[in-house]
Amino acid sequence: MRAIRLLIEYDGSDFVGWQVQARGRTVQGELASALGILLRENIVPVGSGRTDAGTHALGQVAHFHTHSSTTTERMLRGLNGILPNDICIHAVDEVDLYFHARFSAKRKRYRYRIHLGKNAVQRHYTWSLHTALDRERMQAASAYLKGTHCFGAFCKQDPVPEQFSCTIYAADWHCKGRELIFEIEGNRFLRHMVRILVGTMVEIGLGKHPPEHLNHLLERGRREEAGKTAPACGLHLLWVHYDNA
Amino acid sequence: MRAIRLLIEYDGSDFVGWQVQARGRTVQGELASALGILLRENIVPVGSGRTDAGTHALGQVAHFHTHSSTTTERMLRGLNGILPNDICIHAVDEVDLYFHARFSAKRKRYRYRIHLGKNAVQRHYTWSLHTALDRERMQAASAYLKGTHCFGAFCKQDPVPEQFSCTIYAADWHCKGRELIFEIEGNRFLRHMVRILVGTMVEIGLGKHPPEHLNHLLERGRREEAGKTAPACGLHLLWVHYDNA
Repeated sequence: MRAIRLLIEYDGSDFVGWQVQARGRTVQGELASALGILLRENIVPVGSGRTDAGTHALGQVAHFHTHSSTTTERMLRGLNGILPNDICIHAVDEVDLYFHARFSAKRKRYRYRIHLGKNAVQRHYTWSLHTALDRERMQAASAYLKGTHCFGAFCKQDPVPEQFSCTIYAADWHCKGRELIFEIEGNRFLRHMVRILVGTMVEIGLGKHPPEHLNHLLERGRREEAGKTAPACGLHLLWVHYDNA
Repeated sequence: MRAIRLLIEYDGSDFVGWQVQARGRTVQGELASALGILLRENIVPVGSGRTDAGTHALGQVAHFHTHSSTTTERMLRGLNGILPNDICIHAVDEVDLYFHARFSAKRKRYRYRIHLGKNAVQRHYTWSLHTALDRERMQAASAYLKGTHCFGAFCKQDPVPEQFSCTIYAADWHCKGRELIFEIEGNRFLRHMVRILVGTMVEIGLGKHPPEHLNHLLERGRREEAGKTAPACGLHLLWVHYDNA
């Protein structure tokens, strides 16, 4: 038995999400189907985490076990030949049998892109907002995120997760042309966490709340006091980090 | 009678091009349809030039004449409300009746994006190339483009244009992450000109020809000696410049 790790990019626009579901096209499903054709085994790869419908990944990681002796180079070429154009594999590596894409992950980094104004070309990859946002207020709010906190206010609580505690190593807003970009790096993320954080900080950028509101929300932990969930299409999983990798 | 100028962004992926054709969805056709609904007149806007199927525009310009007294602010809001998501209007201005989007244009700038390696998220906006390219050779070749030359070798000659002479003010390659980006600015461009220039410079970057090959092609003017036409999807019309505008 061998354990194989995949480094995957996908355009989430035409998927109902990462995870195989009763209906709809999923990234996991397309990968399972391509692996079935290539290795003639029934394989469902395990991802580092789910992504929502419309969310993109530049560096998603998944693993699977196989009895096949096919080389990793052949798997890389074969998968890219079989997979549809909105998924591509950047690397295939043989890893330790104990490697687990989700449980072995140490850090992840996400990017959220807001486009200020109307926008046609990047409409599937950004959240278009037609109002001015105060980046300095949003940056001041994001400073409260660093460190270990309970993120109960920033999580879809259905089902309620086992624990709300996450450690954030970096969280920053920067401008690039007409885009306002948020990047966040942490040890783990709860469901919809980045999208709710962005929705909340946009309200702060609009002047509805002071930056300290974010700290208040971290302390109170009440989802209904936080902002709306920002659209999935602005979110990009940049990378997942593992020890010795 | 009033003359109105539109500043237009569009994602060319789902269009058969700018210009209205017997079959297929076009940018000009969508604009004509939206203007018909909004102003109740039969209007076909005149663009600064055609773009091919799959080619994008961040700043295309078009004009039209109207008897309507609708304000430009109302036109802007109205058009953006009616148009599909892959077209948006950034500005609507009333201009001199002699203004012509094509004949009054003084300069245009295009960008061509090459992605080095496989790529899913930006696949509709870049040309994915799976080989190494020597940017310095490509930059050396692009230096020959500056100035006024006959571009007969870099033009789809069907039909043969009235004149092949174009003046190029800037032509440069730069790297940005995994992208190799070409930008070119000139007084006018022939059909497929930027795409054939890119296809030719990619052959130079692959080592098939020395950079001086481009100069040779400018002097000889033979299309069959130039490179292949690069895919339309990598091309973006950035802006069109007019006097007093």
